[in-house]
Amino acid sequence: MLRGCVSLARGLRPGLRAAPHGAWPGPRLAAAPQPFWGHTAGFSQLGRPKDFALPNPSWSQDMMSLYNKFAEMAKDGTWKRIPSYDRSVDHLPERVRQAFKEVRQDTRFFLRNTDAEGIGFEYVMFLNPTEKRIVCLFQPGPYLEGVSGFAHGGSIAAIIDSTVGGCAIFAAGKVMTANLSINYRNPIPLGSVVLVDSKVDRIEGRKVFLSCEVRNVDGQTLHAEATALFIQLDTKTSQQQEACSP
Amino acid sequence: MLRGCVSLARGLRPGLRAAPHGAWPGPRLAAAPQPFWGHTAGFSQLGRPKDFALPNPSWSQDMMSLYNKFAEMAKDGTWKRIPSYDRSVDHLPERVRQAFKEVRQDTRFFLRNTDAEGIGFEYVMFLNPTEKRIVCLFQPGPYLEGVSGFAHGGSIAAIIDSTVGGCAIFAAGKVMTANLSINYRNPIPLGSVVLVDSKVDRIEGRKVFLSCEVRNVDGQTLHAEATALFIQLDTKTSQQQEACSP
Repeated sequence: MLRGCVSLARGLRPGLRAAPHGAWPGPRLAAAPQPFWGHTAGFSQLGRPKDFALPNPSWSQDMMSLYNKFAEMAKDGTWKRIPSYDRSVDHLPERVRQAFKEVRQDTRFFLRNTDAEGIGFEYVMFLNPTEKRIVCLFQPGPYLEGVSGFAHGGSIAAIIDSTVGGCAIFAAGKVMTANLSINYRNPIPLGSVVLVDSKVDRIEGRKVFLSCEVRNVDGQTLHAEATALFIQLDTKTSQQQEACSP
Repeated sequence: MLRGCVSLARGLRPGLRAAPHGAWPGPRLAAAPQPFWGHTAGFSQLGRPKDFALPNPSWSQDMMSLYNKFAEMAKDGTWKRIPSYDRSVDHLPERVRQAFKEVRQDTRFFLRNTDAEGIGFEYVMFLNPTEKRIVCLFQPGPYLEGVSGFAHGGSIAAIIDSTVGGCAIFAAGKVMTANLSINYRNPIPLGSVVLVDSKVDRIEGRKVFLSCEVRNVDGQTLHAEATALFIQLDTKTSQQQEACSP
């Protein structure tokens, strides 16, 4: 379960590590549908929504340091930064968004529901396509408080759900959370930075089983660990998406 | 596990129902520490923070109808409305708040992190002291979106965590979430109203085991069900709270 999180935080040498996902079914991986964010290159520059998964002045030194490490590794394609928008519909491929023209315009993606930088969820996710793994760098702001001074358990559940959900989408296309089980080990101080490290453990039919760990920047403190089950909703649609992907 | 949620939504006759919590240890219940909200009567009117668990114009007809039913039952003490504030520290008894004078003033309780009425978490919790049960009426606003048109799984986790947490506080005083496991059964449309119905299943030493169901207003649709484990943090402190309670 450790999955090299300590070494990831300290040195980040994913290319030197054996892929830890022995249970990952290779043929299925090869047929994995293109994730939603793989289509965002089709957005027009003019109408492109703001990408919130980029550094802003509220990001701490720890957050910037980790971001720079992943951004460096993204240059050779080992990791890929996932853009993030403040409306759910903007995460969809442009042609799929066309079907949502009539939907209400006043919604916000839950994790982007605050306006000022730094007060809510500050996060960026990076996908490792080879390892089929997503690491989320997360800095909880003061508007996520539960017990005084610490992030609310629900906010931790939210960032875990989104991170493992990203993994499930990458593996199986259109999915829905069926179960999320979280063990809370140590509270997360507001303003600190943690790594939410998720992977797919196995796929059985339409069921996608995942696990996740949340650790501090040096990897020494385990804040939470989770398992999740996602259900693939529409294999036909997913196959169509794959067929249409670049 | 059903715990009369349908009848609760339709007719709300808790006084006529046998308490379903056979595993609840009576003597321990008798010694349960006073929950934080039991102390809020000590707040001065001048310095009293705004209570957000009261109707506002964004509440739908369903939300108001359920609120009025519980408010009616609160008149004889069967149920008790739990106030809700936008800062975590304001949920504490006034004398405990004194210890937090030096804490940062820019925080927000996670579930109250939006300013406009109706866009985020609209909710009110009612406690049944006899059944040791909390029912939360929850209306997710458009800023809680996950999949287009539906509440984010993380927002559902957050309202469940807070509701079962309220139960655990009532039963054991100062507690911390150790595990939260949620089965998502049916998505919750934004703007709809659901009942989050939680109870303590049993207490073993410092462990408080709880369960919860999330259903629509007529009780026919199960949106989610959950189990939770909370750990009592400081029995000495809890006993002191009890000794000082009114």
